[in-house]
Amino acid sequence: MTSNETVPASAVRDANEVKSWDLEADVVVVGFGCAGACAAIEAAEAGADVLVLERASGGGGTSAMSGGLLYLGGGTAVQQACGYEDSPEEMYKFLMAACGPEADEAKVRIFCAESVAHFHWLVAHGVSFKHSFYPEPFMEPPTDDCLVYSGGEDAYPFDRIARPVPRAHKPQYAGAAGGFLMQKLVGAAERSGARIVCDARCETLVVDERGAVVGAVIQHDGRQRCVRARRGVILTAGGFIQNREMVTRYSPLLSKCNYKLGQDGDDGRAIRMAMGAGADIIRMDAGEVAVPLTPPRRLMRGILVNRFGQRFINEDTYYGRVGQECLFRQDGQMFLIVDTAIYERNLAGMSAAHVEETVEDLEHSLGMPRGVLVSTVAFYNRCAAQREDPVFHKNAAMLQPLSTPPYAAIDCRTDKTIWATFTLGGLHTQPTGEVLDPDGIVIPGLYAAGRTTSGIAAYGYVSGISLADGTFFGRAAGRRAATVAR
Amino acid sequence: MTSNETVPASAVRDANEVKSWDLEADVVVVGFGCAGACAAIEAAEAGADVLVLERASGGGGTSAMSGGLLYLGGGTAVQQACGYEDSPEEMYKFLMAACGPEADEAKVRIFCAESVAHFHWLVAHGVSFKHSFYPEPFMEPPTDDCLVYSGGEDAYPFDRIARPVPRAHKPQYAGAAGGFLMQKLVGAAERSGARIVCDARCETLVVDERGAVVGAVIQHDGRQRCVRARRGVILTAGGFIQNREMVTRYSPLLSKCNYKLGQDGDDGRAIRMAMGAGADIIRMDAGEVAVPLTPPRRLMRGILVNRFGQRFINEDTYYGRVGQECLFRQDGQMFLIVDTAIYERNLAGMSAAHVEETVEDLEHSLGMPRGVLVSTVAFYNRCAAQREDPVFHKNAAMLQPLSTPPYAAIDCRTDKTIWATFTLGGLHTQPTGEVLDPDGIVIPGLYAAGRTTSGIAAYGYVSGISLADGTFFGRAAGRRAATVAR
Repeated sequence: MTSNETVPASAVRDANEVKSWDLEADVVVVGFGCAGACAAIEAAEAGADVLVLERASGGGGTSAMSGGLLYLGGGTAVQQACGYEDSPEEMYKFLMAACGPEADEAKVRIFCAESVAHFHWLVAHGVSFKHSFYPEPFMEPPTDDCLVYSGGEDAYPFDRIARPVPRAHKPQYAGAAGGFLMQKLVGAAERSGARIVCDARCETLVVDERGAVVGAVIQHDGRQRCVRARRGVILTAGGFIQNREMVTRYSPLLSKCNYKLGQDGDDGRAIRMAMGAGADIIRMDAGEVAVPLTPPRRLMRGILVNRFGQRFINEDTYYGRVGQECLFRQDGQMFLIVDTAIYERNLAGMSAAHVEETVEDLEHSLGMPRGVLVSTVAFYNRCAAQREDPVFHKNAAMLQPLSTPPYAAIDCRTDKTIWATFTLGGLHTQPTGEVLDPDGIVIPGLYAAGRTTSGIAAYGYVSGISLADGTFFGRAAGRRAATVAR
Repeated sequence: MTSNETVPASAVRDANEVKSWDLEADVVVVGFGCAGACAAIEAAEAGADVLVLERASGGGGTSAMSGGLLYLGGGTAVQQACGYEDSPEEMYKFLMAACGPEADEAKVRIFCAESVAHFHWLVAHGVSFKHSFYPEPFMEPPTDDCLVYSGGEDAYPFDRIARPVPRAHKPQYAGAAGGFLMQKLVGAAERSGARIVCDARCETLVVDERGAVVGAVIQHDGRQRCVRARRGVILTAGGFIQNREMVTRYSPLLSKCNYKLGQDGDDGRAIRMAMGAGADIIRMDAGEVAVPLTPPRRLMRGILVNRFGQRFINEDTYYGRVGQECLFRQDGQMFLIVDTAIYERNLAGMSAAHVEETVEDLEHSLGMPRGVLVSTVAFYNRCAAQREDPVFHKNAAMLQPLSTPPYAAIDCRTDKTIWATFTLGGLHTQPTGEVLDPDGIVIPGLYAAGRTTSGIAAYGYVSGISLADGTFFGRAAGRRAATVAR
C-alpha cells in the first residue's frame, strides 16, 4: 500500500458480503484515459450500459499530458497521401524487432492487421489528421502536421529488417496533441451514452464464489459505494511509475530516471486490484526510457560514448532505444561528444559540460581512463571520413569526423539531464483484453488495456505505441466485455 | 499451466469445500530440498507436528545436484582457521554490492549477522566442514577442502568495497557436495520427528474465508488428498527454470541459456500456487547466468570481448558476473581472446574455434568490424606491459600482453558453449519467510524460502548463495510457522 491508501487494493470484496449495489452497469470502466474512453465507446456502441469511473475530476488521464502521437500504419490515408507505401506485414516485422524480445505475436499481429481500420475509427470519432509529413523525427511536430518517424524505422538495425516508413500520426493540432486527442475521445464517450462518474476512486474489485469479477468498490462523495458490473470490469487506469515502492520492487533501474511520465493515478493500484482477483503480472521490469537527445537530430552527428569512452550504439537510432540501452546496459552513464562544427543549441537545453582544445584533454576532463576516448574518436574519424561506420552502422549522411576544436562533451548521465520514464509491465492479457491468471486461464469478468497491461511494447519502445495500443486494445476490451456470454 | 498439469496451480481450494482432511499437521512443508529440510527441522525442534511433502521419490531436490557451496561468513571457524578475518559488516557490504541493485537490506542484514550461528547450526546437524582453503576460485573444490572465493571478492570492483575474504564453504566431501549436504539434512529432518511423504505432488493451496492458507491439495497414491496445516504451509519447491512458458513470459533472455540448472520440480508450480492465494512476485527477470570460463583461472589472462571486439569487464571477476553482464548487456555474445602463451586445456572443454597468426586475421575470421579488436588488443597490450588496466581494473597478476602467435578466439556465445542458468525471481517474502501480497501485507499461514522466493541475490549472484539463503531462510520460515499465533 502507498502512504495515502487506506484500503489494500488486492483485498478483494466477496460478492456475498455486498448487501446492496449503489450503482450498476453492464460494463464498468475504471480510468478515463485513452484506453478507458475507447473501451467505453465500443462497449456502449455494442449496446451495453456503460459506467466510467475516473478518480480525477475529469477525463484525460496521462494520455492528455502526452504529445498525442499514435502509432498507426499498414497504409493509412496519411501515409498514402505523403507517398509512403506501407503494409501490415512490414509494420509487423518492424514492431516485433523494435518491441522485443518476445513481443506478443498475437497482439502485434492483430494490431498491425487492423491498424488502417483503427485509423478510420479514430477519424470517425472526431480525431482528425492532416495529410502531411514532418521531417524531424521522434517527437510530436510543433506544427499541426501529422506523420513522423518515431522509432528509428529508417536507421540501423530496423532499416534492414522492414521497409522504412514513418508511422506515428499526430492529430491535427499544433504542438503536443494529447489534450486535443482526449478532448475528442472524451466527447465521443459522452455522446456514446456511457455514464461518466468523476472523483470516483476505485479501491478494490468484487469477486463472486467462482472467482468472477462482478463489480468494484469505490470511494465517491465521501463514502464507500459498491458498483455492480453485470458483464465485466475493464481496468484502464495507467501504469505504476508514480508508485516508488512498486518501481523499486519490480524495476529498480527505472528509479534512476528523474522524470516520471504519468499522473498521480499511475500508482499501480489497478494492477494490484487485479492481482487480488488472481491476475498474473508480466515484464514488470520493462520501461520506456527517453533521454532528450534531440531535436535537432543533426546533433547526433556527434558520438555517444559510455563511461569508459567506448561507443555502444548508432547515434541516429530512436532516442528511446538509446535511453533503454544506456540505462539497462550502461548503468545510465553516457556522454555525447561533439566538435565545434557539430555543436549547436538544442531544444533539450543540453549544454556542453566540458570543453577542451583536444580530445586528450576532454578525456582527462571527463575522468575517463586514458586512451580509450582518444582511440574511439580516432577510429570513428578514420571511418567517418570514408562515410563508413562498420561497427554501429550510423547512416552515412550522419557521419562527419570530429575534427574542429574545441571539442565538447554533453553530460547525459541520469543525474545530469532529464531522463523520462514510464512503466511498460503490467497485467497479462489476451488480445481481447481478457486478463489471465498465472496458469494462463481467463479470469471471468476482468478486462484491461493501456499501461495497466503489458502491451505491444514488451521491452523495446517506439513513440506513439502507448496511445495506439491503449486505444486499440481498449476498444477490443470494450467490445469483448459488452458481448461475451455471462 | 504446463502440458503435464491437469489442475491449475493458482485455482485455490475453498476450505469450506473440503469435506474431510486426509492428513493433518501443524506445519506442512512443500518440497524437500535444502530449504524444506531446514524448515522441517526448525519447526519440529520448536515443537510443531511437521509434515514434509515431496513430489519426487526421495528428498534432495535441486540442492542435491549442486556443488554444495554455502555462502557463510562474518568469522566462521573455517575462516579463522585459514587466517581470514571477516565480519558481518564486511560481508554485508560485499553482498549488497554483489547482489544488487536493490538487494533486500533487511534480509542481507540478518543473513550476515547470524551467519556464524548458522554455520554452527549446520555443523550441529551433521554437516561437517574441513578447516582448509582451496585456492582455485568460484567452483566447489575437487578435493574435500572447504573454503573458496566464490564471488570475485578479491577482484574489481568488490575488492574496493569490502575486505576481500573467501566465504563459500563446502561440506567435507570430495568433489560436488550437494548430495552429501542433502544426505545430512534429510537425515536430520528424519531424526527431528517430521513426517515425510514422498511421491506427493502438491496441486494447490486451501484458503479459508479470511484469506488464510490452511492446507494443500495433493496427488498421492493415485488420488487427490487434502492436507490440513493447522499453523501454516511453507513453500520450498524451487524456482521455475524448467517451465519454458514462465521463463519466456517473465525473463525472455534467460531462454537463451542452453543448460537449465534444476530438477523437473523447478516448474514454478509453488509460485503459481502462492499467487492463487494472493502472493506478490518480484524480480522475475533475474537469473543466475554462468558461462564456464574457468578453471583454470589462469585462462583469464586472456581478454573477453563483445561482438564488436570491445572489452566490457575485468576478466578475473566471478564468472557468474561475466555471464549476467554478457547475457543481459551484450546479447549473450562474447569471445575469449588468448595467445599461445596463455592458452591451455581447461576443464570446461572450451577449445579455440579460431586460430590465426595475427590479430588482424583473427578479427577477420571472427567476422568482426575491421579495426576494433586490433585496437582493443593493442591498447590492452600497452597497458598490460605496464601492469595496468585503467579501464576494467583486472588484477596486475593477471595482466600479460597477448604477443605470442598464433592468436586464438574461444567462442563463448550462448549457442556455442554451455550457459547454465536458474531463476532468482519469485515470491516476495519477509526475512521471517512470511509471504507478502502486492500491498505488502502478510498472507496468514503462508511461508516460503529458497528459489521459490526472491532471496539474497536480488539480481547479482555469488556461488553458494542459493544453498545458504535456502537453508537460512528455510530455518526462519520453520521457526515462524511453528510459533506464530493463529
